[in-house]
Amino acid sequence: MGKLPLGTISVIFIAQRTGNDDEGYAAAATAMDASAAQQPGYMGMESVRGHDGLGITVSYWRSDADAKAWRDHPEHAAIRDAGRDRWYTSYTLHVAQVTRSYDWEKS
Amino acid sequence: MGKLPLGTISVIFIAQRTGNDDEGYAAAATAMDASAAQQPGYMGMESVRGHDGLGITVSYWRSDADAKAWRDHPEHAAIRDAGRDRWYTSYTLHVAQVTRSYDWEKS
Repeated sequence: MGKLPLGTISVIFIAQRTGNDDEGYAAAATAMDASAAQQPGYMGMESVRGHDGLGITVSYWRSDADAKAWRDHPEHAAIRDAGRDRWYTSYTLHVAQVTRSYDWEKS
Repeated sequence: MGKLPLGTISVIFIAQRTGNDDEGYAAAATAMDASAAQQPGYMGMESVRGHDGLGITVSYWRSDADAKAWRDHPEHAAIRDAGRDRWYTSYTLHVAQVTRSYDWEKS
């Protein structure tokens, strides 16, 4: 991803996986990543999951309206219900507007 | 962490580890977590690293001034230099102000 324009909307999703249905979860995650990438205003995503099942995904959007449109997308809403039913024990989501951004790479 | 007050400052740190010096890195990370937790305005931290060495850490601060004070803390600055020298191949850091926040837990 690298450095972001100021004003970019970051959506920070922190979720604890159940141990259930790894295959169903992986398929849904792949489908959601592909679908998000096609939405207006999508700027990218970064995602990490640790061995204890805690994951952090940050997606980046051009505007708050774009982030809300993805939140309200019917396909996304259906997957969210499945997530609550089967894949997650808890999650937290923060929407935050970027005020500074830096990157560094070893030369 | 759970739901955050609006206006909270989130610092999103996304870093790729080298394969070097796991012990030195782990000791420094533990020391930095403990030191950050003692700073004014610290509200918490969440951190995940995947098996490929990509990590996302999000720390939360009461105000931008608090986040900047931690950035400029001498102990933190010294560790940052060590990180560039030994522990990271690249990183990105975004500072973003929370505009919405939700949490959910399986009942």
